[in-house]
Amino acid sequence: MKKHYLLTPGPTPIPPEVALKEALPILHHRTGEFAAIFSDVAESLKYVFQTKNDVFIVASSGTGAMESSVVNLLKPGDAALVATCGNFGERWTKILEAYGIKPQVINVEWGKTINPADIEKALKANPGIKAVYTTFTETSTGVVNDIAAIGKIIAASNAVFVLDAISGLAGQELRSDDWQVDVVVSGSQKGFMLAPGLAFVSVSAKAWKLVEEATLPRFYWDWRKMKKSLGTKETPFTPPVTLIVALQEAVKMIKAKGIENIWQECRLHAKAARAGMKAIGLELFGDNPCEVVTSAKVPQGVDGGKIVKMLREEYGVSIAGGQGALKGKIIRFAHMGYIGKADILVGFACLEMVLTRLGYKLEKGKAVAAAEEALLNG
Amino acid sequence: MKKHYLLTPGPTPIPPEVALKEALPILHHRTGEFAAIFSDVAESLKYVFQTKNDVFIVASSGTGAMESSVVNLLKPGDAALVATCGNFGERWTKILEAYGIKPQVINVEWGKTINPADIEKALKANPGIKAVYTTFTETSTGVVNDIAAIGKIIAASNAVFVLDAISGLAGQELRSDDWQVDVVVSGSQKGFMLAPGLAFVSVSAKAWKLVEEATLPRFYWDWRKMKKSLGTKETPFTPPVTLIVALQEAVKMIKAKGIENIWQECRLHAKAARAGMKAIGLELFGDNPCEVVTSAKVPQGVDGGKIVKMLREEYGVSIAGGQGALKGKIIRFAHMGYIGKADILVGFACLEMVLTRLGYKLEKGKAVAAAEEALLNG
Repeated sequence: MKKHYLLTPGPTPIPPEVALKEALPILHHRTGEFAAIFSDVAESLKYVFQTKNDVFIVASSGTGAMESSVVNLLKPGDAALVATCGNFGERWTKILEAYGIKPQVINVEWGKTINPADIEKALKANPGIKAVYTTFTETSTGVVNDIAAIGKIIAASNAVFVLDAISGLAGQELRSDDWQVDVVVSGSQKGFMLAPGLAFVSVSAKAWKLVEEATLPRFYWDWRKMKKSLGTKETPFTPPVTLIVALQEAVKMIKAKGIENIWQECRLHAKAARAGMKAIGLELFGDNPCEVVTSAKVPQGVDGGKIVKMLREEYGVSIAGGQGALKGKIIRFAHMGYIGKADILVGFACLEMVLTRLGYKLEKGKAVAAAEEALLNG
Repeated sequence: MKKHYLLTPGPTPIPPEVALKEALPILHHRTGEFAAIFSDVAESLKYVFQTKNDVFIVASSGTGAMESSVVNLLKPGDAALVATCGNFGERWTKILEAYGIKPQVINVEWGKTINPADIEKALKANPGIKAVYTTFTETSTGVVNDIAAIGKIIAASNAVFVLDAISGLAGQELRSDDWQVDVVVSGSQKGFMLAPGLAFVSVSAKAWKLVEEATLPRFYWDWRKMKKSLGTKETPFTPPVTLIVALQEAVKMIKAKGIENIWQECRLHAKAARAGMKAIGLELFGDNPCEVVTSAKVPQGVDGGKIVKMLREEYGVSIAGGQGALKGKIIRFAHMGYIGKADILVGFACLEMVLTRLGYKLEKGKAVAAAEEALLNG
């Protein structure tokens, strides 16, 4: 009987029109019917990615597509650069190290963002760097990096720009080609409004040169197999048919709304979320907050874990807490994908009740009022 | 408007009770609610696998779980043995080679089965072999290997027995522990009556010793992460929530029916399928036909590709043709999972019409009658 309100940065809520597609009788994947869906989806993904490059569909969580961006680009002993400002940035280093690559790491304090000049300096100092790995919106802290600036710097070098856009794509403005991002990784369960289980990766011509020279071991993650499958419309391995059929519906909805309108809406949602937090005295966390998730510091004397737990258990409202060193110290409200204006208001109304119950002093209705104000006036 | 009848060896049809679970509002994966589902499913999988070992759930196609059985067990330079009798057996060799392992290969002609004595001979000749990779039901040809006999031989050696049971598990009798199979790989889209997108792998204590010594690169496929997740009930990466919720329903149905009853039913279905083929003069393909899919040779003068195409396009009946060198030469009828007795009869009735249209001489109704007879009298 419990009613759920998902304001988590993945999985995000799934529109019923998309969810019901998952329940349709399954198609066989080696048929013209499925091939038509598969190539329609692959083509539509280019629009969402804002790229002319091929976008591959991978049956895995987003991390699988990240791993594919390591094994398809590098050789043992290759130089790589990781610029990280949070939990997901650190994942790049872990994956690279699992394959014996010791990357140079620009490690920025959690909550801060990457300084593009640091990447420029690193690339000048080591022109042998093959690939630069970083994060678009760092979900663990709620900040966004300046991808246009980083893209310009990397484009002027020999290196390939690889971006984890799992949580930001189809939410916050990301222009893959204009911003010269060679490899863009994303996942189905955030801006795409779909269940987890699919990941996506776009690959530029500059990156493709490395793909042909790469010698790290690859089989399931092999982009060469995936590229071939776009031509033949036959996936190398049995694809998650129901998720891809649902993805077609989700991408159709994204196209109908228009990607720029989605960016605009996320921007407005972020304004409302920030206004709501501030109105009840919660300090925003992070230097350059992104537009898909808003992080705020847990007030002194309040147990951050209890906020998340009570919201979920008593009111059915799911938000995220902090990860790693930020555990218990921040709360994170997502406002991307199928999270609507009313959901944000629900989130704040219940947050007001929970904080009150946890002994924090606030004026009830103030967060909601501030969010309403922002939603009305932008 | 087209009505589909799936008699393909994966994806197989999905029961509506399972399919509809995929459409339920999505749960967040870091909640007690999902953790309870996850651990219930992981526990139930042990029953389906007939094992006391942990069964890991992987977000990928079955091939991903195969790859995990390479990277978690071996070191560069390790000796491995592949015993193959078809397309899927050959995949083991390809994966091993992608990781720089040159396996010794027992290569049996497609349509024949592995002779357990050959494995015994190979293990005696090279006691350094770390792992033996083979296939349970080889879907590409429709045969089944003698797993009990192979298990006995490998158990007496130092090697670990790794079995691709993607298409046979939860269909044909497979007793993982009794037959001493150390690593059993399966996938969601066959006997499990679910959409593709999940793979499973059970790991014995004998295999786990190799996991700790293995040094091939692994990150996403790392069983150590998966083992930890069973304890903490938190998956290492965002799991395909909707598929796992649906899996819980599917496994509940399997438990309610009883795995031995499922084996018995598959056996009966296979009898009916073989009888139907023979009744209209089609010769069975393969030495030791399995019970989840029945292969028959395409009669001389008939275009095998046209049989498959016409069945699908004119009657909505999906069966499989041959793969690789068998393309156009065999047809394959699956009869596992949610493929019922009536589906088999539909398949034969439409096959009779299609063969007649393609100029093959047969007495209409004979295949159906023979299948009915087998279904009635076992």
